[in-house]
Amino acid sequence: MSAPSLRIGLAGLGVVGATLAKRLLSGAVSGAVLTAVSARDANRDRGIDLSGLEFVADATTLAQSDNVDVVVELIGGSNGAALNLVRAAVAAGKPVITANKAMLAEHADELSLATTPISYEAAIAGGIPIVKTLREGLVGNNILALGGILNGTCNYILTRMEEAGLSFDDALAEAQAAGFAEADPTLDISGADAAQKLILLGALAFDVRPDINKWSVLGIEHITARDIALAQEFSYVIRLVAIASCRDNQIYMQVAPMLVRQGSALAQIKRETNAVFIEAEPVGRLILQGAGAGGGATASAVLADIADMVAGRGRSLFAHPTKDMRESPADGVMSAPDRMWYLRLMLTNKAGSIAQITQILAENGVSVKEVVQRSQHGDDNRLPIGFITDKASAQAIMQVGAALQARDDICSDIVHLPLYDDD
Amino acid sequence: MSAPSLRIGLAGLGVVGATLAKRLLSGAVSGAVLTAVSARDANRDRGIDLSGLEFVADATTLAQSDNVDVVVELIGGSNGAALNLVRAAVAAGKPVITANKAMLAEHADELSLATTPISYEAAIAGGIPIVKTLREGLVGNNILALGGILNGTCNYILTRMEEAGLSFDDALAEAQAAGFAEADPTLDISGADAAQKLILLGALAFDVRPDINKWSVLGIEHITARDIALAQEFSYVIRLVAIASCRDNQIYMQVAPMLVRQGSALAQIKRETNAVFIEAEPVGRLILQGAGAGGGATASAVLADIADMVAGRGRSLFAHPTKDMRESPADGVMSAPDRMWYLRLMLTNKAGSIAQITQILAENGVSVKEVVQRSQHGDDNRLPIGFITDKASAQAIMQVGAALQARDDICSDIVHLPLYDDD
Repeated sequence: MSAPSLRIGLAGLGVVGATLAKRLLSGAVSGAVLTAVSARDANRDRGIDLSGLEFVADATTLAQSDNVDVVVELIGGSNGAALNLVRAAVAAGKPVITANKAMLAEHADELSLATTPISYEAAIAGGIPIVKTLREGLVGNNILALGGILNGTCNYILTRMEEAGLSFDDALAEAQAAGFAEADPTLDISGADAAQKLILLGALAFDVRPDINKWSVLGIEHITARDIALAQEFSYVIRLVAIASCRDNQIYMQVAPMLVRQGSALAQIKRETNAVFIEAEPVGRLILQGAGAGGGATASAVLADIADMVAGRGRSLFAHPTKDMRESPADGVMSAPDRMWYLRLMLTNKAGSIAQITQILAENGVSVKEVVQRSQHGDDNRLPIGFITDKASAQAIMQVGAALQARDDICSDIVHLPLYDDD
Repeated sequence: MSAPSLRIGLAGLGVVGATLAKRLLSGAVSGAVLTAVSARDANRDRGIDLSGLEFVADATTLAQSDNVDVVVELIGGSNGAALNLVRAAVAAGKPVITANKAMLAEHADELSLATTPISYEAAIAGGIPIVKTLREGLVGNNILALGGILNGTCNYILTRMEEAGLSFDDALAEAQAAGFAEADPTLDISGADAAQKLILLGALAFDVRPDINKWSVLGIEHITARDIALAQEFSYVIRLVAIASCRDNQIYMQVAPMLVRQGSALAQIKRETNAVFIEAEPVGRLILQGAGAGGGATASAVLADIADMVAGRGRSLFAHPTKDMRESPADGVMSAPDRMWYLRLMLTNKAGSIAQITQILAENGVSVKEVVQRSQHGDDNRLPIGFITDKASAQAIMQVGAALQARDDICSDIVHLPLYDDD
């Protein structure tokens, strides 16, 4: 091979960056060589010999270095040093590889105009090669729907609540101790991280312009041990599910905790694992599962992007600049298909309460399929009651919720979650 | 785009070929155009307008046609017309795309020498993009093990036996009626089809020269309702599992019915679905599932290969000609890691039988973890008894089998199956 090797400049030497550097230095990608790195602390021992490499303090310098053909951004954060580096690389005409979903989702308008390739296999579902699968493996297909479990932190918390009966707070603390949740877990547990990944998937699959404000995003902060237990009585578990679909040219995207049937493929996804499903014509339904985060999974995806750059196969962020993409509808969740719902509330323990609640459901055209009421998990004068409804629109359930909210004489603390029942 | 379109010549217009032709004619792959077809019957109505295409009676002619840049072989069969066409295409310097695992596995020595690309995403696990994932998505990884459920016919039969308590014969008949098994199902139920796919995976992942004779291949013909039921009592299901691994530079490949823990990822794979697992460093464990056969899944994979050809990314069969690949060891199964085993036999109903059997196990260093004996599923004077052993080598279990075989006074009809317990 006489072609000169592609010279990689790597910004960020945390867990992912160190794993990546180690593999590049051992020749994992033929035709690529690590030449320059940038990190906050030059002298920390990472178990790697960086002595042959250019070391720069300011990451932006990598973009200008004569030693660097491609910039790998593993700094993180949607603005600041990461964005500065990417802008500098684009300005210098150098391709970028990044794992930074937040930056891509927030700055999609700008970055979609870049005239150099921007690769981001690592930004969505970590080690699962979902970008390559969508762009290349399913190139001749029409994608109908895709999504899945895109946040390992939420999944870890929910499965620990389910396995060990933990409260949300205890499961979160455990996830933090185990390194699966940040000290400030907001971005993960609010659903924002999953939503950032979903809008990138929506842009790839349906050519929808990323706009994080357009979509309904609910996190798992309000999921209680009570709901996990009640869901199990109906033979469901709770997962933070992200879904994007395009049916009859109607786009729908949502991130929410949903009830997933026990024994189904998504219920099977435990702890920090991620899973992406794709429904497409003609291939049918695919499910890809694997580690969604961590040094190894992320490094694996970056290595694949590097190899594609070596092969001259880097691509622009999306198929078009965002201004040429399909606009997001005003409210994604309202275009959701009718679904079954889980409705849970704390019933005021007095005669006639249940009758009045089912009356409110009936008045809104929502019929009840299953009911479970239990005395455990109650408090004082309130008892939890759970309903599984027949298929109903999001609108109908919102109306039911509002009507119940107004009746604090008979109930309080109302929760409604959709049932994911597609597999 | 001013580059001339890649002109596709398609041989075989069965279910897959017709699905593929329809999508190519509707422009599914930008830069590729269907120009010529070959099929046994020119006039059958396939719901496609073939009027603008060159139609040739003899598939080999496609290789010579001035209208054809790339040949897609969907004829099937490891020799005959399919092989003739591929040879002619290679001789004419034209790339080949094929779904024909039998031909590739049997003629790997010859086809690995071809100087034109040979693509075969559709040959392994249908719509699951496993070839692309191995070659590109996991390019910087060391693969440690891979395999899974690679034959939809066997999986359909086994899950129907499990769900509905059917006998093997009734489940096979149902699979045939449903179009999931051929009139002559031998290639599928013998494990040969799964083995052909596995040796292609082994060649891709471990650079092992394909040699179908070197590996232990067992089919599902001898799996009985009795074993399905007994496995369930131990909380297992039976799946035809294919595994290839490389640990400490030791290659192991095997196709066999195995006991898979209920609730695990592979137990979850039902009916005609396929699943491929990959264990690799640094990515960890990935599982990809989807339709392993059928028109849509196969056409999807061929479309991806066509798009890669358009992008100039076709590849030779393997990384090297087979003569430069690692030789298969003499007997794959003997290099299997120690495992737990399911041992089932028909016990002659007389005092002391069980004691003598457990004595034979103990003499061979195999210890018993669980036992279930039932009076149902017996016949005359024989009762089925099942054991789950502690970890033992394949050698030890073979010796136990031989020793029990010799004792037809106390038992008969001995079955031993490994436990797949890696997920």
